[in-house]
Amino acid sequence: MRLTARPIDLEAGGKFIVILNKDDADYLGVRALDRVCLKYRDKTITAIVDTTNKFTLKGELIANDDITKYFGLNGGEHIEVDPQNGIESTKYIRQKLCGARLEYDKIKTVIRDVVDNKVSSVELAAFITALHTQGISIDEAASLSRAMVETGRTLKLKQEIICDKHSIGGIPGDKTSLILVPIVAAAGLTIPKTSSKAITSPSGTAERMGALAPVNLSLEEIQEVVKKTNACLVWGGALDLAPADDMFINIEYPLGIDPMLLPSIMSKKKAIGANHVVIDIPIGNEAKIKTADQARELAEDFMELGKRLNMHIVCGITYGDQPLGHYIGPALAAKEALLTLRGNGPKDVVSKATNLAGLLFEAVGRGNRMTALQMLKSGKAEKKLREIIEAQGGNPNIKPDDLPIGEKYATVKSECDGRVLRIKNSEIVLIARRAGAPLDVGAGIHLNVKTGDSVRKGETLFTIFSNNYNRLNEALELAENLKPLTVGNKQEEKMLLGEMKGTCEKRIFVLDR
Amino acid sequence: MRLTARPIDLEAGGKFIVILNKDDADYLGVRALDRVCLKYRDKTITAIVDTTNKFTLKGELIANDDITKYFGLNGGEHIEVDPQNGIESTKYIRQKLCGARLEYDKIKTVIRDVVDNKVSSVELAAFITALHTQGISIDEAASLSRAMVETGRTLKLKQEIICDKHSIGGIPGDKTSLILVPIVAAAGLTIPKTSSKAITSPSGTAERMGALAPVNLSLEEIQEVVKKTNACLVWGGALDLAPADDMFINIEYPLGIDPMLLPSIMSKKKAIGANHVVIDIPIGNEAKIKTADQARELAEDFMELGKRLNMHIVCGITYGDQPLGHYIGPALAAKEALLTLRGNGPKDVVSKATNLAGLLFEAVGRGNRMTALQMLKSGKAEKKLREIIEAQGGNPNIKPDDLPIGEKYATVKSECDGRVLRIKNSEIVLIARRAGAPLDVGAGIHLNVKTGDSVRKGETLFTIFSNNYNRLNEALELAENLKPLTVGNKQEEKMLLGEMKGTCEKRIFVLDR
Repeated sequence: MRLTARPIDLEAGGKFIVILNKDDADYLGVRALDRVCLKYRDKTITAIVDTTNKFTLKGELIANDDITKYFGLNGGEHIEVDPQNGIESTKYIRQKLCGARLEYDKIKTVIRDVVDNKVSSVELAAFITALHTQGISIDEAASLSRAMVETGRTLKLKQEIICDKHSIGGIPGDKTSLILVPIVAAAGLTIPKTSSKAITSPSGTAERMGALAPVNLSLEEIQEVVKKTNACLVWGGALDLAPADDMFINIEYPLGIDPMLLPSIMSKKKAIGANHVVIDIPIGNEAKIKTADQARELAEDFMELGKRLNMHIVCGITYGDQPLGHYIGPALAAKEALLTLRGNGPKDVVSKATNLAGLLFEAVGRGNRMTALQMLKSGKAEKKLREIIEAQGGNPNIKPDDLPIGEKYATVKSECDGRVLRIKNSEIVLIARRAGAPLDVGAGIHLNVKTGDSVRKGETLFTIFSNNYNRLNEALELAENLKPLTVGNKQEEKMLLGEMKGTCEKRIFVLDR
Repeated sequence: MRLTARPIDLEAGGKFIVILNKDDADYLGVRALDRVCLKYRDKTITAIVDTTNKFTLKGELIANDDITKYFGLNGGEHIEVDPQNGIESTKYIRQKLCGARLEYDKIKTVIRDVVDNKVSSVELAAFITALHTQGISIDEAASLSRAMVETGRTLKLKQEIICDKHSIGGIPGDKTSLILVPIVAAAGLTIPKTSSKAITSPSGTAERMGALAPVNLSLEEIQEVVKKTNACLVWGGALDLAPADDMFINIEYPLGIDPMLLPSIMSKKKAIGANHVVIDIPIGNEAKIKTADQARELAEDFMELGKRLNMHIVCGITYGDQPLGHYIGPALAAKEALLTLRGNGPKDVVSKATNLAGLLFEAVGRGNRMTALQMLKSGKAEKKLREIIEAQGGNPNIKPDDLPIGEKYATVKSECDGRVLRIKNSEIVLIARRAGAPLDVGAGIHLNVKTGDSVRKGETLFTIFSNNYNRLNEALELAENLKPLTVGNKQEEKMLLGEMKGTCEKRIFVLDR
């Protein structure tokens, strides 16, 4: 049927959406979330239908921004509207809902339609839920990774060996990449590191590096930086590497599920051409992965998936029961990374970075952990980071004290003498985010003590930083409520690890990849 | 933070939706589909967030119709906006995604929030998908039914025994309810029958009865009609009986899944107070349920669920491999129902209606199939239907030929001599809908022959009716393409039942409840 266009100024992230009057929709035999085929002059598109009784008059078709732009509408044009059967993806999504294992071609079709914004959010939610409840086979994971790479842009480097590093995440203050990348590059290996921004954590590698140099580079700029320095530390979000992943995250996050974890990570690595990757799997009650068994299972999946994608994967299982180092938040963590590269880093930061770098050196047959330590101690890694900073457009002479730490701060003191028995990662994350991290680059936490340290009553346990007074106060209030550090004489006196009463359950969902 | 209201004229079916500028959303730490708490004067609501880079300016809050109305906004008001953690339902939905069996209290909370429009469509899609992939336990089904009844309105009748009838559906031309309801009522039993409108079929009971009398009655009017006549035949859609169900259907339909089948049906029956219900399960390759085993399994689930809900359920498994009777479409089927009540009905229509009515009579200890036949043959059932028509505001003297059959028609003739070997239900449905049914009350199909009948080359197989010439031609073209009737000398000569080549798969999804 023919309907008259009325454009409205509503964007839908690239999706074509029409709002039809209920009567017209009934006549066409379509319902909300069905698809219609729109024809105007020589152009034809598929749009998702919304219906209304009031907003759209009979005979009228409300077109969103994306349609208006594509057809070049001013309003009043006659658009030919026909019901359209489901796109091919709909069929495969339904097959998945009924328990089918999908082959590569089908997965590629779905991912292509997701990237082209043809899949409705309800369909996408159903697809992701089915992947979560029914699990993904290793073949499906490989197909998903490959399809995500093929529907995005890729980084093309001519080196034969390309390294990369990834962490499963969940450990506040983890600045390993800022130290590992220059170590690996200083040894002559290529490591073009891209990171996503923090969704649930107080800072990601992109935000930490962002305190030292610009990270929002184009693929062409990245190619130049890597050519000069063997490495980069950039934000991967705007590069269109595996763009389907970002759309999955938008659905996974509100649902608190993450079935695409493996394929997503691998697709981002594959898209930058990596063929030797070290994956950090932190474990502990306070980490995303709780036990060594679970970590080994995950590591096996990563390695198996790597084989299918022609990538050599090595995994490091690391201690994750407290924050890494003493500084949490973008600028604070960057400061500690710089201190570590200058030889003044805490032992856990040094140990983690050099061990993971050592795994990579072993994987490519170019040394081991001692090689990494040597790069660190000789100052070559620091020099390399400064080269990278300069190549990305930052100040190569930046000193740890130059970093813009939040101007306002508050301290939390111990209420008793004793030892620090536990530090709760999830609560440290909440407090740092309440203080403004990661958007407020200077916001975060300085842990004056770590697990096992002795403290006296009244001694400072940690300091909260922020550039906003209200946020600082809110974070302080939260800290006093949560008490993220447990101080006691002996572990035996503090046997209660958690409480469950009525509906007060609280769980943090870590989605950062 | 405080944002300035800008109302826009966009309804969201009762959902509160705000569109925030990306920067403000980042500052609040919320993402699309998260929830925020809005405060204005003494009112507080929870709204679902959408974000934009362009449409909403920084500092501005776009409020949809529902918010504008609730707060009484004109634009320019300062609204206090705070991030809000997930509603309680979010927690239970996530538990379901992780495979949990949900207890009654949790299910009630989810259903309540669904009805109150607090659950986003992504969450609802995930919940329904998880119910589909993981299955629903009988306890969950009972909880869902009960919660759906409790969150809607109910019909209150003082009779001790209240009967009802439901069909799983999928059989074109099934006018059983129009005959069974007056049979049961004529025998002195109470049977307040409500029906939903056809979603995927050419007509539902509501549309068929709609050709004889008004069906859009209020609960109060229904009470009056039942008081006068023991029965009614009305549309249940606007009565707010188990309103959650309609919201589930909106998600289930585009996904092609129907996990709520049992709880939905039972909730609608429970809401009108039914305690003796006969359920028709048609089986056959052309029906929704393919085999007798599957039908028995479904029947056992219905009976078990009935026990938990204090309802006596009996099931009839019926032959469903071809349309019922000869007439398909709202007015055409109503005409055949009237003919049947006057003693001129086809044998399959009479057999099905009297057998199912007999099951109900046995269930309440008031006779059997013979009682039903007697009601039919004595003319008491016809008299009863005319009483119901009059009580609902229709013409009690209506004659079969008074029904408004489509003025335009086209015939499809046999291409050879032989017998009708098969009639494909799903193709008959597609053709009748293409002709305009159910919106065009006169549209539909008259089957001149049924399976087993002899035909000669050139003899009419069926006639398509419509009030719209274009639609009639489209339906005719479709009929000539699909060839829904197979004519041949012997079954043995037509062994090929279907073809699968490349992507030409075609499947009809029947969602009518």
